[in-house]
Amino acid sequence: MEAAYSKLWLDYKPLDITFSGSLAIRCLKGVRRDCAAVSELITALSALLPQAELTFGADSASYIVELDIGGYLGPEDYTLSADERGATILGGSETGLLYGVFAYTRELITEGGFTRISRRVSPALPLRMLDHWDNADGSIERGYSGSSFFFKNGELIISDRTVHYARLLASVGINAAAINNVNVRGDAVRFITPDYYRKLDMLGDLLERWGIKLYLSVDFSAPMSVGGLPSADPLDPRVQSWWKDKAAELFRSVRGLGGFLVKADSEGQPGPYAYGRDHADGANMLARAIQPYGGKVIWRCFVYNCSQNWRDTRTDRACAGYNTFAPLDGRFDDNVILQIKNGPMDFQIREPVHPLFGVMKQTNTAAEFQLAQEYTGQQLHVCCLIPMIKEILAFKTYNGRDKDTVLDMISGAAAVSNTGDSFCWTGSELAGANLYGFGRLCFEPSLPAEDILDEWISLTFGQNEELKEKLLFILLGSRDAYESYTVPLGLGWMCKPNHHYGPDPWGYEFDRWGTYNRADRDAVGVDRGPGGTGYSELYYPPLSDIYGSADTCPDELLLFFCRVPYTHVLKSGKTLIQHIYDSHFEGCEQAEEFARLWRSLEGSLPEQVFKNGCERFREQLRCAAEWRDIVNAFFHRLSGIPDEKGRKLY
Amino acid sequence: MEAAYSKLWLDYKPLDITFSGSLAIRCLKGVRRDCAAVSELITALSALLPQAELTFGADSASYIVELDIGGYLGPEDYTLSADERGATILGGSETGLLYGVFAYTRELITEGGFTRISRRVSPALPLRMLDHWDNADGSIERGYSGSSFFFKNGELIISDRTVHYARLLASVGINAAAINNVNVRGDAVRFITPDYYRKLDMLGDLLERWGIKLYLSVDFSAPMSVGGLPSADPLDPRVQSWWKDKAAELFRSVRGLGGFLVKADSEGQPGPYAYGRDHADGANMLARAIQPYGGKVIWRCFVYNCSQNWRDTRTDRACAGYNTFAPLDGRFDDNVILQIKNGPMDFQIREPVHPLFGVMKQTNTAAEFQLAQEYTGQQLHVCCLIPMIKEILAFKTYNGRDKDTVLDMISGAAAVSNTGDSFCWTGSELAGANLYGFGRLCFEPSLPAEDILDEWISLTFGQNEELKEKLLFILLGSRDAYESYTVPLGLGWMCKPNHHYGPDPWGYEFDRWGTYNRADRDAVGVDRGPGGTGYSELYYPPLSDIYGSADTCPDELLLFFCRVPYTHVLKSGKTLIQHIYDSHFEGCEQAEEFARLWRSLEGSLPEQVFKNGCERFREQLRCAAEWRDIVNAFFHRLSGIPDEKGRKLY
Repeated sequence: MEAAYSKLWLDYKPLDITFSGSLAIRCLKGVRRDCAAVSELITALSALLPQAELTFGADSASYIVELDIGGYLGPEDYTLSADERGATILGGSETGLLYGVFAYTRELITEGGFTRISRRVSPALPLRMLDHWDNADGSIERGYSGSSFFFKNGELIISDRTVHYARLLASVGINAAAINNVNVRGDAVRFITPDYYRKLDMLGDLLERWGIKLYLSVDFSAPMSVGGLPSADPLDPRVQSWWKDKAAELFRSVRGLGGFLVKADSEGQPGPYAYGRDHADGANMLARAIQPYGGKVIWRCFVYNCSQNWRDTRTDRACAGYNTFAPLDGRFDDNVILQIKNGPMDFQIREPVHPLFGVMKQTNTAAEFQLAQEYTGQQLHVCCLIPMIKEILAFKTYNGRDKDTVLDMISGAAAVSNTGDSFCWTGSELAGANLYGFGRLCFEPSLPAEDILDEWISLTFGQNEELKEKLLFILLGSRDAYESYTVPLGLGWMCKPNHHYGPDPWGYEFDRWGTYNRADRDAVGVDRGPGGTGYSELYYPPLSDIYGSADTCPDELLLFFCRVPYTHVLKSGKTLIQHIYDSHFEGCEQAEEFARLWRSLEGSLPEQVFKNGCERFREQLRCAAEWRDIVNAFFHRLSGIPDEKGRKLY
Repeated sequence: MEAAYSKLWLDYKPLDITFSGSLAIRCLKGVRRDCAAVSELITALSALLPQAELTFGADSASYIVELDIGGYLGPEDYTLSADERGATILGGSETGLLYGVFAYTRELITEGGFTRISRRVSPALPLRMLDHWDNADGSIERGYSGSSFFFKNGELIISDRTVHYARLLASVGINAAAINNVNVRGDAVRFITPDYYRKLDMLGDLLERWGIKLYLSVDFSAPMSVGGLPSADPLDPRVQSWWKDKAAELFRSVRGLGGFLVKADSEGQPGPYAYGRDHADGANMLARAIQPYGGKVIWRCFVYNCSQNWRDTRTDRACAGYNTFAPLDGRFDDNVILQIKNGPMDFQIREPVHPLFGVMKQTNTAAEFQLAQEYTGQQLHVCCLIPMIKEILAFKTYNGRDKDTVLDMISGAAAVSNTGDSFCWTGSELAGANLYGFGRLCFEPSLPAEDILDEWISLTFGQNEELKEKLLFILLGSRDAYESYTVPLGLGWMCKPNHHYGPDPWGYEFDRWGTYNRADRDAVGVDRGPGGTGYSELYYPPLSDIYGSADTCPDELLLFFCRVPYTHVLKSGKTLIQHIYDSHFEGCEQAEEFARLWRSLEGSLPEQVFKNGCERFREQLRCAAEWRDIVNAFFHRLSGIPDEKGRKLY
């Protein structure tokens, strides 16, 4: 029977070495032989060295892996030292040990055998989270990889795939998963009722074995929808008491529960505003209910007016998150984590970094990324997001702290998952790199993108230099290509409404979502400088000055911050309009090159992988040509300026 | 208990006259006392003159209505003569008699009592049909009046509402109804199987009593989907034989069956093209199967390439129907009727009349209108289509015949119904006028729109001169207003894709549907003249010349036929761009005036009707302002030309 899913980067295959000795695993004090770390090590070694005899603690073995737990390490830290005779893996807890085991087996595979290693690793971010937008009925909001493997027809599913899911997450250090959509609808409202406790407890217990806390997205108005109260006012004692009782019941019934993820007062979801309260009131009320159990509230900052009048040029959606949350800095309880999208809009291919990261100095925050390629090609286009995530984490906020980057300011990162029940989990095999890379970066953000991808390719497809070189070329160039043939210069939002796939330059222009390009026959872009909406002023100097003027604003964000004529000369020396034309033609050519390289890999990849990739590249090229021709036609019809190179415009 | 539906124009109320005598109905030879005509007459007289004694054939009665059937009349004809002492209604059959009864009661109500009448009427069109786009699951494609009253969850429903439906249709002379969507999906594929025969037979029998033939939309590939054959090739003897057997079974099982309505090779529906056959092959094959039972095949001419490349400026969707069907003239069997949409595109607020009407000289044809206001405000905007239907029927084709209008050329008219299970049947009470007027026009196309609406208002809302004056003003001005604030000058297709409500000037511009405005900074419109796509050449002279040049093309169709600069001067003396601005502002002002008039009718209308109207006018004004501001902004951003009157543009 065909497997129902790929093992992805955990498909351990025999190492290409001659090892005729015996292997031993020695568990020192406190390491239970049935813990996940030991189990994973056995799985890995048995597969990597199938000929070798594997025993527990036989001193005479020719290669010994010693596992230990050391109190001086943080619980998720590990040290790893190895040479030709053996290895010692020390974890701060069984979870740290598990991470050490995964690091060790990764080295075995990427190095092609036993090697010298000496390393101590602490995860850079305490919270490393995956947010699934899976609905109880089995659909996935913004899902491009099939249906949910968590839910079907209102039932929670636990299967061998769930175990493999937990291993995949643990292998890259992800330690939290919110399993249901932040838009809590249908049966999902009832996840916090006894109807679901037994299954949730099984799932929480399973995930916890792999170091992963289970989070639930909850309906802020649950006191009404579930509890039958007349209100969900966070300052109403009955509401507070309802949540306290609910939390006690939940944490008592469900092992491994980490807390709640909440989308409140956003795009139609209920929230504290209905009662004249603010987001601190709302988040703290929940936080206090779950604080006794070590629970955390992950509170999303994606709050804006989604019924804006397009005629209104003063209201700027980009300012909304900042204006809502910056005044509340210092008012959130310690077990509240504000989850801030990487940019102020919504996961466009290029946005400035969210100004909230710099300003929330007294609040726990997490960065939110979107691996589900909602606006970045929906897993039909290859678009590797690792470089973008690195850029954002490294972004200097200039907020006056010695350590002032986004990475310094946040205590967690969350990503909207790109998974589903497709064979390869992420629709496209290449999209698996985003899942892998996100976890690796949360743990070790200083890793170069190229190294992470190198690892991922080796683990997923084996050691093949030509394959690696080509895949690296594709993956590392993919974001630039996508940006070039879709919407360059930070303009954003030229996708088709609702499903967000394919081009529609004015699809959002006269609508209520606050996402406008304001193009006319002379100029394009939104003036977000001090003379415009003032958004640039939300950054600390010198960023506020740099972003506030077309003279200093970096080209790649020019049309996000500035309104300029088509004849404006970019730092590159090109006019704006010529840059638009060129980038669209060049981006398509890059995509064609990627497709050509992929096709040249026939035989080097499993047939199923190769064919799936071919189909997706075919669609990517079709769609990229649409983007090129439609966006160019749009600006050509408006500007009337011909292409210097005389290429066909429509 | 509240009634579940309004009786509309059949809500007979006591006449405001003093009549103290007795009434008698005298049925002459061949008139059955239980036929629909007699039954309707009893219902009407009992309600109109509740005090009067009503008997059958009492010679001493003070007022006698004599009913007779006369062989020298066509079966649907009637004569009506009346004075103060009585009336004689003579029908060519029970159906003609029924029409005569409805005409008689209409006169009683509109005249306010017994009056002198002398009239002989023959319906102008033999086929007067309503096409319901109701799906088996109860939804209605392009339905804006609730759910289907024919179907629910795959079941056919027959209730008292069905009887009232039949009376409504008969009262305006409609004699055919296709009850299911031309896109035949889901359970509807199985309507032509024994699963549905019993219910269909009941329905067909019910409808036939009211002079209405039951039509079914059928799946052209039914030999495969229902019959399990490997093909639906119309020239395959097995397919022909399957349809022959199916027809025999169907017509034997279902009384009152009129035939089939077919959408083939259109927008994804199967058809003869799959087998290298043409539409005559397909239609005739079905026609021959049902010919022995007097059945007719209504074959839609809405065939075009719906996967066009927007870059291709030579292919013109407007030409498609003509190019497909004109070469087939003369090849269709007598019991095939080609159903031709009023214009070459798809029910836009303004299109030229379809060129097929003139050219199909050897083929039975019917005009297809759309009462469901898909593109004309979805029953939220008031848009009375009676004047448009009259215009189209009166359109001279110049095809060389002495009688050369559309009305002369066709033998039937069909309308996509605007009905559903909403209380007032058509979502908006004012939309009821379209249903009423369509039937009346098919029967007596020479009736002025104003007279038809006058009748409808009297029958529906009673005799109130102020009410009548205001409603007439609203209804008669409504199409011009809608056209003015949406898409004037024949340009069309600036609605939002898919649902077709509200403005999106370039929503269809870069898509596959062949519906482009080609606007740029200098000009707008599609050149369909001899130097362009050549569409204008599909008309007979002088139309071909008139339409082929911007100098002679009527303003209201200018942008359908010609591409002109924004500075082009219209026959009105205004520039094109100024006309666009003016018409949008003026159309909105008209709509505001309509809403004001409606609000002044509080107390003159039933409260439910008044409130429903107020809500719809509120939405109409909101949406009209969106149309005005977005379309004006679109052309202002492209043209850069300011409004002469300095009004606000965005």
